[in-house]
Order: sequence, then C-alpha cells, then structure tokens
Amino acid sequence: MFYSVKTLNDIGEREAIRIIKSILSKGLESIGIGDDCAAFDIDGRYLLVSTDMITASTHIPNSMNPWEIGWFITAINFSDIAAKGGRILGMVLSLGLPVDTSEDFLVSIIKGADSCARRYKTSIVGGDTKENKELTLSGTVFGLVPKEQFMSRKGAKVGDIIAVTGSLGKAAAGFLAMQKGCSRDFTRDLFQPTPRVSEGIRLGELKVIHASMDISDGLSSSLYQLGEVNNVGFEIWLDSIPISNRLIEVCDSQECIDNSVLHFGGDYELLLILPEDKFLEVKHELDLLGTNITKIGRVRRDLEILLKDRNGVYTVLPDLGYEHFKHR
Amino acid sequence: MFYSVKTLNDIGEREAIRIIKSILSKGLESIGIGDDCAAFDIDGRYLLVSTDMITASTHIPNSMNPWEIGWFITAINFSDIAAKGGRILGMVLSLGLPVDTSEDFLVSIIKGADSCARRYKTSIVGGDTKENKELTLSGTVFGLVPKEQFMSRKGAKVGDIIAVTGSLGKAAAGFLAMQKGCSRDFTRDLFQPTPRVSEGIRLGELKVIHASMDISDGLSSSLYQLGEVNNVGFEIWLDSIPISNRLIEVCDSQECIDNSVLHFGGDYELLLILPEDKFLEVKHELDLLGTNITKIGRVRRDLEILLKDRNGVYTVLPDLGYEHFKHR
Repeated sequence: MFYSVKTLNDIGEREAIRIIKSILSKGLESIGIGDDCAAFDIDGRYLLVSTDMITASTHIPNSMNPWEIGWFITAINFSDIAAKGGRILGMVLSLGLPVDTSEDFLVSIIKGADSCARRYKTSIVGGDTKENKELTLSGTVFGLVPKEQFMSRKGAKVGDIIAVTGSLGKAAAGFLAMQKGCSRDFTRDLFQPTPRVSEGIRLGELKVIHASMDISDGLSSSLYQLGEVNNVGFEIWLDSIPISNRLIEVCDSQECIDNSVLHFGGDYELLLILPEDKFLEVKHELDLLGTNITKIGRVRRDLEILLKDRNGVYTVLPDLGYEHFKHR
Repeated sequence: MFYSVKTLNDIGEREAIRIIKSILSKGLESIGIGDDCAAFDIDGRYLLVSTDMITASTHIPNSMNPWEIGWFITAINFSDIAAKGGRILGMVLSLGLPVDTSEDFLVSIIKGADSCARRYKTSIVGGDTKENKELTLSGTVFGLVPKEQFMSRKGAKVGDIIAVTGSLGKAAAGFLAMQKGCSRDFTRDLFQPTPRVSEGIRLGELKVIHASMDISDGLSSSLYQLGEVNNVGFEIWLDSIPISNRLIEVCDSQECIDNSVLHFGGDYELLLILPEDKFLEVKHELDLLGTNITKIGRVRRDLEILLKDRNGVYTVLPDLGYEHFKHR
C-alpha cells in the first residue's frame, strides 16, 4: 500500500496561493489577499501594501547585471501600487545572498534599487540581509491612496471596455533578443521595466476606472484572473493590441508576435476596465503624461474569454501565463 | 599580478548593512534605516514598517517543525513593532520554497504564521510564493503609533537606567537542550518566541522611555548598537540580569549561564532606557500585564560598555552577538 504526497511541483503556484488564502484569517481592516495590494483603512485613505520576491534560478537570467536586478525588484513592486492608483511611500528590500557574493555586486544591486526609487521620487527605507544558497530579493512596497481613488481588481461591468497602457511585447522582445545574443539595448525593457506610477495616480484621480491590475504575468493570465474576480468574460481584439516595435523587429513570424503579446509577461503595463464613454477623457489625461492607452476588448456577460483573430474569427483564448513550480 | 575581491564572507553582515546605508538616498518622510522599523509620518502618527528574512541553512534547525517556522517568522517581525510602541496592522509573508516542498509542509507554515498573527489580534494580509533552492521566508510587518508614543533607539541620557523585560537565556536554553536531545518542551521558547506587543504599546503610552529596541541579536550586540546610536556607554550589572530558570536547568556551569544571557540572541525581550525616577511607574504598569521588568545597568558618559561581574570587578563587555556571513 502506498499513497502519494502532493508537492509544489504537482500543485503549482496558483493552487499554493489558493491553499494559503483558505487558511489565513482575514483581518477586519484589510481588503485581503487576491488584489495586487492589501489595503488598510487609515482615516479615509487606504494604506496599500504589496510584496514580490525573485530568485536567481527562476527570475534572474545570467545576462542581467546586479544594477538591473536592484532596479527590477523595485520596479515590479512599484507596479502593484501604481495599478491601485496609489502614491508610493517607500519600500523595504531584503536580500538573501550567497556567501561568495562580492561587495561590488551588493553595491550595484543597492544602487539599482535606489535609482529606481529615486526615479519615482521615493526611497528604500530599510531591509534585511541574510545568507542564502541562492540570490533572493524580497521587496515590500507601501503607499497611500484616498479611498475614492482606489482602483480595485473588482468592478467590471458587462459592456465596459478593456484598455491597456503603452504597448505589449517589450519584455518578450528583450527575452527573444537575449536568446539570439543581440545587444543590451534590446534587453532594457525586460530588465529595467518602468512601472506606470504617475499614470496610476492620475487614473485614480479621475474616478472612472471600474477595475485595474498590472499585466506582470502576461495578458491572457491577467484576463483570466480579472474574469474570475469579476465573474465575467471578455472578448479581446487581436488586431487592436498595441505591439512593441522592438517585438516586431525581433520576431520572425506573426505567430511569434501574437503569442508574445498574448501570453508573455513582464511588461508592467496597466490593464484597465472602464465605461466606453469615459475612454476619451482618460486618453486625453494620459496623453498629457506622454502615455498611450488603447482599447483592446470588451467585458462579456458569459464567462468565456474569447480572442477575435485578424480574420474576425472568435476562439477561446488559452490561459498560458507563466506559473512557478509546476513541472515545465 | 592579482588583487583580492571582498566578499560577504570577509566583510560580514553589519558591514554589508553599513555599505547599503551609505548608498541609499533617504526619503524625506522617513526616519530611515538603523532603527528597528522605518517610520513614516501620516497625519500625526507614524506608519512603522519592518522586515525580517530567514533561510533554512542559517536560521531553521532541522528539529523546528513547519508550524514553528511560520510562527517564528511572524513573531520576530512583530517584535520590531513592539519595540517601537506600535499597534500591528498586519504582515505580508513571502515564501521561497524548494520544488519538492509538500503541500502539508506549506499548510503547516501558513497555519503557524496565522496562529501567531491571531494570537496578537492581527492577520497575514498577503504575500508571494516563489521557487527557491533553499526554504526562505521573508515577512514585512506594518503598524501605527501616535508620534509622541514612538520609542526610538535614540534618546538615552547619561544617568538613565537600562532595563529588560522578562528574563534572558530562554532561547539559549532551548538551543542547548536541542543539542543535548532534550524533549520539545525545552525548545518552545527558542522556536515559538512571544514578542512583547502589549507591553510595547503600554510602554509607548507612558511616554517615559528614552530609548527602546528588542534584544533579538543578544544583549551585548544590542548594547553596542544602542551605544553607537546614542553616543554613550553603559555599565551592566551581571548579578542583576534576570535569568531564565530553564537556562539554569540546562547549563552545566556558571560560565555557560553568563555567556548565554550576555551574548545569545533570540529572546525578543525589550531593552529599555529610561530615567531612574520613572522605573517604579513602568514596573507597576507592566506588572498589570503580568510581565517583569528588571534594572540591569546604567548609561555612562564615556563610550565604553562595561560589565560589573559577580565580584564587583568591571571589565569591557565584548560584542559577541551572532553575525551572518562572517567566516565562523
């Protein structure tokens, strides 16, 4: 007689998170796990808190230099506050470092993190430094947003449009270029993402966004997460998705381009759901910040997530976002 | 020709933290790195933030079960808020997990963390879960304290007394018992520390504490840190230090007892500096919470940290706190 023990390799990251959520007693003040940030009511504002961890073997390619590693962990944390409309107060950064880490390497990580923080007019305010077999960085960012400016993941209404800031495929282009051995110019967007902090604040102030999240895990994965939270479906118009010029340059085929914009993560753009009649106002405001916004689809009543391809044919969009642990 | 590259193995954890501090641009709103917590001014209160990371190879003995691991990472984070007089709002917990981690192991970690949070009437509000070669836990806790109740590390005055809550050597007793293969009863204080959260809040409310920190790194290390921040010295009276009964039971010699209470960390008691004439008031208030407080020394003008031994002889107290990275 034998029985099997499930490991993380079997269950995957999302199931692990589902298990964690099912155990934790939720605090009364907290909006709770499941959004990009936890949110606490403090005198009419929300204190937003979010945390991201990266490790050498799964998140840090060899060609990423330590300055970029520091920038990266900071930027991806900031993106979660941006997606909620928050102003960043600061971040704490903990480092798990192999004993043979050089002082120069450490200095460069910190300079990268500090540069990113300064770029967004905030700072790294503390942290911890511990020995680890594997280079590990854990950032926790916190910010504030007036309650009425908080952009939840939840709030999508049937008929709303789906829009995205900037363009998609920038990080994918960097990844593909890295595989082809192209120059470092191409990996900049992959290793040094620029979270939409000013845009997030402005969008929150407009109070017209029904739901918001960042696209860190890729478009398809983000849509499936939004669909589940909101109990709705979507249709996405492939022809409308704004594509990075770099991606077009790097890809050999239309298939490469389409798969990259639909499923590859790492762009840290904002995925927004809003009433169609507010789109021009939002577009105007983001134009003033020098940022594009593009309609890419619509919220549907039924729960399917459909892709309208370049021939006008609708098919179910598969959920192919990157998931940790699960045997790859 | 060759030159040497300094690694963390050479420079040690404190030098690494000094390097990090020298690079980071401090935010205007923040009290900054160096205290137990970062503190942000929010409408007359401080938002307190602190973070601690632990890893399997350096912090997690094999005999520590996953429930205890979850409790431990939560408790040591809470202790930093307690030392500042803060009320805990919540904690985020990130897990770096080997791919062969079992679902049961994960569930137990989360249950331990959740139990600790509930014990202190708060909750784990979010986190991240990533693959890691080594089990790694990173917690970030945040809390609030009215500005006038904030207990800084800085503020010691010459002539003030030094006091400590509870007793010292509980964690050391657990460590020694573990080496001797004693029953699990003995490791409870080591693996399941109880941060002084209610005590910290009450002490802050009294507004008489000049300086406060937790003794996580051991008494001697904590005194050296406080001495440097305050630009003062201390004298510590060995005979006055409250010693855990368990430690007396486990140790074979007076030397074992003395070294343990002076240098072994992990007790998470509060080290407090206050005017002598306020001591009885403070003692009375902590008595109401069922917690002892004991005078163990005095603040000196010169920068030496002296130990008065059982014969009344003064010697310089060495700084033997545990430091990561440095070749052991």
